[in-house]
Amino acid sequence: MTILKGMRVVEGSAFVAVPLAGMTLAQMGAEVIRFDRLGGGLDAKRWPVAPDGQSLFWAGLNKGKKSIAIDMKSPEGRELITRIITAPGDDAGLFITNLRVRGWMDHETLSKEREDLITVTLTGDRHGRPQVDYTVNPSLGIPHMTGPESGDPVAHALPAWDIAAGNMVVSALLAAERHRLRTGRGQDVEFSLKDAAAATIGHLGMIAEATLTGTSRPRAGNALYGAYGQDFVCGDGQRVMVIGLTERQWRGIVKATDSAEAMDLLASATASDLSDEGTRWRLRHQITAILAPWFAVRTLAQVAQVFDESGLTWAPFRSLSEALREDPDLSEDNPMFTSMLHPGVGRYPVPSSPVTYSDFARELPGQAPALGAHTEEILSDVARLDDTEIARLFDTGVVTQAGREDARDAA
Amino acid sequence: MTILKGMRVVEGSAFVAVPLAGMTLAQMGAEVIRFDRLGGGLDAKRWPVAPDGQSLFWAGLNKGKKSIAIDMKSPEGRELITRIITAPGDDAGLFITNLRVRGWMDHETLSKEREDLITVTLTGDRHGRPQVDYTVNPSLGIPHMTGPESGDPVAHALPAWDIAAGNMVVSALLAAERHRLRTGRGQDVEFSLKDAAAATIGHLGMIAEATLTGTSRPRAGNALYGAYGQDFVCGDGQRVMVIGLTERQWRGIVKATDSAEAMDLLASATASDLSDEGTRWRLRHQITAILAPWFAVRTLAQVAQVFDESGLTWAPFRSLSEALREDPDLSEDNPMFTSMLHPGVGRYPVPSSPVTYSDFARELPGQAPALGAHTEEILSDVARLDDTEIARLFDTGVVTQAGREDARDAA
Repeated sequence: MTILKGMRVVEGSAFVAVPLAGMTLAQMGAEVIRFDRLGGGLDAKRWPVAPDGQSLFWAGLNKGKKSIAIDMKSPEGRELITRIITAPGDDAGLFITNLRVRGWMDHETLSKEREDLITVTLTGDRHGRPQVDYTVNPSLGIPHMTGPESGDPVAHALPAWDIAAGNMVVSALLAAERHRLRTGRGQDVEFSLKDAAAATIGHLGMIAEATLTGTSRPRAGNALYGAYGQDFVCGDGQRVMVIGLTERQWRGIVKATDSAEAMDLLASATASDLSDEGTRWRLRHQITAILAPWFAVRTLAQVAQVFDESGLTWAPFRSLSEALREDPDLSEDNPMFTSMLHPGVGRYPVPSSPVTYSDFARELPGQAPALGAHTEEILSDVARLDDTEIARLFDTGVVTQAGREDARDAA
Repeated sequence: MTILKGMRVVEGSAFVAVPLAGMTLAQMGAEVIRFDRLGGGLDAKRWPVAPDGQSLFWAGLNKGKKSIAIDMKSPEGRELITRIITAPGDDAGLFITNLRVRGWMDHETLSKEREDLITVTLTGDRHGRPQVDYTVNPSLGIPHMTGPESGDPVAHALPAWDIAAGNMVVSALLAAERHRLRTGRGQDVEFSLKDAAAATIGHLGMIAEATLTGTSRPRAGNALYGAYGQDFVCGDGQRVMVIGLTERQWRGIVKATDSAEAMDLLASATASDLSDEGTRWRLRHQITAILAPWFAVRTLAQVAQVFDESGLTWAPFRSLSEALREDPDLSEDNPMFTSMLHPGVGRYPVPSSPVTYSDFARELPGQAPALGAHTEEILSDVARLDDTEIARLFDTGVVTQAGREDARDAA
């Protein structure tokens, strides 16, 4: 039993946000049916890939879902998808998508088959154009704020907006379903990746800042913006980040590095008060110059010992490979992770939901289905077709299922 | 009327994630009460700040909330907070927090006053230590994947995990409230910023990749990982990003830049198939060398014209200030934004929720309260105190309210 047990969500998607939303709902206990075109959607082979070419991206973002492969260009395929999306059930009639919704698959058309349908649609931008983090960020000025002071604009490695938007799809769906539980009314819920990004940087005060000051936040290397926080290279070449965001953290750094006297001199020479976070930001280069020698003559292990004893907020820089070797939080020591064997690929730690609910035990994370792994089951249980009809659909190539005897080649 | 109208959520928070969660719930129509210690919480002055020093961060992340300022160290203050969190109401008894919950403010203690209380607690890591994006990212290897190939690790400018975690607080709360509607049961919901990050990079396939290959994704400048996507400098010095993630996008780039012949030669010389996304990734430097001269002899305007006519997915790089001047999506042309005057600060575009619900009209974004602006109202309406009791609390300095006659100095 998990928190959304009994809910059924249908997903028509590709890439990050909506697949992440469906996977999140699946890890919360919902039955999530992802449909794809024959041969797989746009993300069927998305990197990262395993040495044998299997998509680790697909494997990660589709855990715990059911998969059906349907010829989405045929009228019969479209009718089947409509039937699956609008199938009866109190906790069904929930559709999430980032595919281009036109005609047969838009909310207006689908809701003729089920009046209380809830559709959550994520688009690229409000004009309906495709967008990805790699385009949203440059157009909103984020790379201009990222990277070394003197360098070129730097793109983020993480699809931060896709990640945020995927979680927003989940909350929008739950809010709309809450409303439906009370009123019986379905609805069409929409937003765009770019609007999610633009709203969020507004919420963070960045639009206000750029408007009121007439300039944008500058690139500041790895410095924490607006207070003190900086990376340092230790004597053994290892890099660490240390945070002086709150006054308590700042005092902790000064004490741990025995630099109170130098900081007092700096404050005095600049007639400033380092307990003010903005002052620490403005004087960050001078502060860093005072602190750097302390790190330069210590190993990471020595720094770690002092900082941990002092209760500082800090972290080592390391590669993900190093983190996987060193950090118990990325191993089965963390109950969120389960080491799972993926046939033909290998064994690696797989995360379940990071969220724990006291009324439910943690569930295993589940694995991603092969494309079309549940085609027959879904046609029978959800679309309510009989065996003869199902056999005909396989025979005519409207649907496929890997490993099914009479399945045709998906190509 | 908005989608969560009637719901009441109490927030005890600081910084990004939980304030963002509360603000999001407020923009969905919930009544959100944020309580802070006298004088304000740790983020009361968080940057960015307006020229007069007012926190634009506070203004952005607390829009539409009610604020009460209470002496959280006094037994009476703690009793008041308990009373507000556990106040009666079918759609109340919902508490979100990232404060260190010990004793009087933990779920176990609070739920003695209201058995069906739902608490969502966000911690730094699963051990309860403070963490911020600036520490989570280095410890998980993200800066090692970010920035120029030959440079040092680069931190992200956005608090991506805080943003994701804030949205996860919303969905966790809604899921728990859904469960309570059906069963009457409250519960304690918890997760950590670091676990949210670690789970998400697992979902994206990055942990699998690092485990199976034994190495981590390398820094690759502004290249799109695993397919083709690259930034180019135009003849006028402007920078653009162009995306060749899908085969259709890739073919569009080749056609728009008239480089089919050169790409065929490259494919032939390397005995490779550029319609394969992994091949495009491996040959990205050669591809970029072919394309770069096309950009070098064109202005951004010329590139834009060709790319828009070709329906390519692309974006200009620009600062946020430039974006605010040039991009209608960041202006009132976008119904998500409302230009609002903030007393003593100035006028700037303020975002409402990016999500539109067809059953509800879009609401104005609302403004953030001054610290303690609703102290008296909350003591009366939620804590159900009479005027005499309220006056005594102000007199004894247990609570404050800016501008109230008998308010004491919060310092």
